[in-house]
Amino acid sequence: MSEAMNRRGFLTAAAGAAAAGMVAPEAGAGEEKFPPVQWKMVTTWPKNFPGLGTGANHLAELIQTMSGGRIKVKVYGDKELVGAFEVFDAVSRGTAEIGHGAAYYWKGKHPAVQFFAAVPFGMTAQEMNGWIYHGGGLELWKEVYAPFGLVPAPAGNTGVQMGGWFNKEIRSLEDLKGLKMRIPGLGGEVLKRAGGTPVNTPGGEIFPALQSGAIDASEWVGPYNDLAFGLHKAAKFYYYPGWHEPGTTMECFFNKKALEALPKDLQAIVLAAAQAANLDMLSDLTARNHAALEQLINVHKVQLRKFPDDVLRRLKQLSNEVLAEVAASDPLAKKVYESFKAFRDQAAAWHRVSELAYLTAREL
Amino acid sequence: MSEAMNRRGFLTAAAGAAAAGMVAPEAGAGEEKFPPVQWKMVTTWPKNFPGLGTGANHLAELIQTMSGGRIKVKVYGDKELVGAFEVFDAVSRGTAEIGHGAAYYWKGKHPAVQFFAAVPFGMTAQEMNGWIYHGGGLELWKEVYAPFGLVPAPAGNTGVQMGGWFNKEIRSLEDLKGLKMRIPGLGGEVLKRAGGTPVNTPGGEIFPALQSGAIDASEWVGPYNDLAFGLHKAAKFYYYPGWHEPGTTMECFFNKKALEALPKDLQAIVLAAAQAANLDMLSDLTARNHAALEQLINVHKVQLRKFPDDVLRRLKQLSNEVLAEVAASDPLAKKVYESFKAFRDQAAAWHRVSELAYLTAREL
Repeated sequence: MSEAMNRRGFLTAAAGAAAAGMVAPEAGAGEEKFPPVQWKMVTTWPKNFPGLGTGANHLAELIQTMSGGRIKVKVYGDKELVGAFEVFDAVSRGTAEIGHGAAYYWKGKHPAVQFFAAVPFGMTAQEMNGWIYHGGGLELWKEVYAPFGLVPAPAGNTGVQMGGWFNKEIRSLEDLKGLKMRIPGLGGEVLKRAGGTPVNTPGGEIFPALQSGAIDASEWVGPYNDLAFGLHKAAKFYYYPGWHEPGTTMECFFNKKALEALPKDLQAIVLAAAQAANLDMLSDLTARNHAALEQLINVHKVQLRKFPDDVLRRLKQLSNEVLAEVAASDPLAKKVYESFKAFRDQAAAWHRVSELAYLTAREL
Repeated sequence: MSEAMNRRGFLTAAAGAAAAGMVAPEAGAGEEKFPPVQWKMVTTWPKNFPGLGTGANHLAELIQTMSGGRIKVKVYGDKELVGAFEVFDAVSRGTAEIGHGAAYYWKGKHPAVQFFAAVPFGMTAQEMNGWIYHGGGLELWKEVYAPFGLVPAPAGNTGVQMGGWFNKEIRSLEDLKGLKMRIPGLGGEVLKRAGGTPVNTPGGEIFPALQSGAIDASEWVGPYNDLAFGLHKAAKFYYYPGWHEPGTTMECFFNKKALEALPKDLQAIVLAAAQAANLDMLSDLTARNHAALEQLINVHKVQLRKFPDDVLRRLKQLSNEVLAEVAASDPLAKKVYESFKAFRDQAAAWHRVSELAYLTAREL
């Protein structure tokens, strides 16, 4: 540390009281009065599940700390209050005030929900956030959830996922025929079109299903999360890239009446907490996936495989067919798809000269 | 909307009062009392500059709204209270409580600061956030700023930048010789090693400098920001990718005494506001860069050019030399560099099978 720094440090200390910038309370300033509330957050994850469950915990803590305890949030894992796939209805009817999951779990409620979670050959995390926050995506998402009395917000992202766990190598599209695979949402529809049978299993039930042979293959998230479930003990080939989930958005959603009963400062707090938690989860997974992948390969002797280009090319064609069909099935799904597609095409063009061009240059 | 949805909507409305989950105030609950404060935020950007200046405004608004007006924040653009490059000292001495800029502007204060902004052939936005929030980066950043009485937080990101504006084509490294170019931080050091002369010009002064010929070339940010400054009117070749700034982190920093004088809930609010603003700026720029690039190419007839692979390869070698030299210059810089490099190497390995593999597959 230099003399100058010491002097600067001292000056800063001396200026402390002034720097705190205290002013007399003004009329109209200060938070609105509101009696403390106790909220429930129901989640689709096993309690404290690394990355996803801990991301939900982090969101709850942020809300509680920023609100100075005016909102207390108790987090429930899968089956603690309701089952993973009952979370949407539970918040809709007011059994809990917040839900935490991924929108494609609710495709039975409305086909349009899937665009807000993961789309095969769709957008990366950075592109999804661009669309949702600044490309009209959030307004559409609110429109889709409004009839259920819910207000959605993105609350996490996995980044590009892995393509999944298989017990045989995938050399051509024909190798997917007859395969019973856990793969939710639109990716599952693409698998069906390739001749496979998609299954929508909650995370906590994947390992026993894969080990018992009830399913032949499964995707889950990425190395960090997949290692936590021990999926390498039930399958030996680990494929990339996750063409079906290139930037899966995790969501939270609020019971609309509960959210709107909050004063403006607390409404702002819960929504900004979700945005902060969104970035925090992606950062957490980005920091942890490499070490987990190394452990899977070096300690557990997992066979890492890339899907052949021809398989990816054909899956992309099938994906476009599936998306067009979903859009044709419902006017609101069509509106969401068109917004999604326009943004994806523009973002892909921009990322061709930025993210992709840079990542390629770094490998030179 | 189906009958079931209508019914669900009705049930939700009926459950509203219960859903709001009101409980009697508890002892100990509720925010700490704190007289409202009026804070100043000084920034390195022209007031309201698209993306960067508006990102600073957004952070100020978030803090104000979430705090229920207990913290009011007035934002100052470049030269309104202090000049762009005086922002660090102004917050250090308590003239303002918050600064908003990019850490490489302060390389004269300490060489280590540059790793928290942009590193040639370094990390993308997603990787920077992984390192800073979950890879030990933020702890190191706090250590570097502590002697100045400042607490830093990431508060925005540009994503991969463009390589810059030139009036001649860059066909080999020799074309950079003798070039006087606005390029700050470590990228500038690399240019110097390639025989050029780097200049560190505040954003608002780039256009006149480039137009008058005071500088031969300049990088700034990306299409949206570069268009706003009209840089296409002063140069015709627009190069990519931004090897020198692959995920530039924007920062805010707080006068430590002012921050620590806040009660815990308000401290949590300002830090979460910065995290939310971090994601929001990147999302904003991601949503806007494509249209700006199209306008530059189609309306303003800008010539888009990719740096040749051989130029990129040699710039990468020079970058590694520069980084090693910065690390050798100071023990704290060495500590930061080693943490940065270890994380970058792991993140690059993971992104080889995820982000890069996916972006490549999407182009098939």
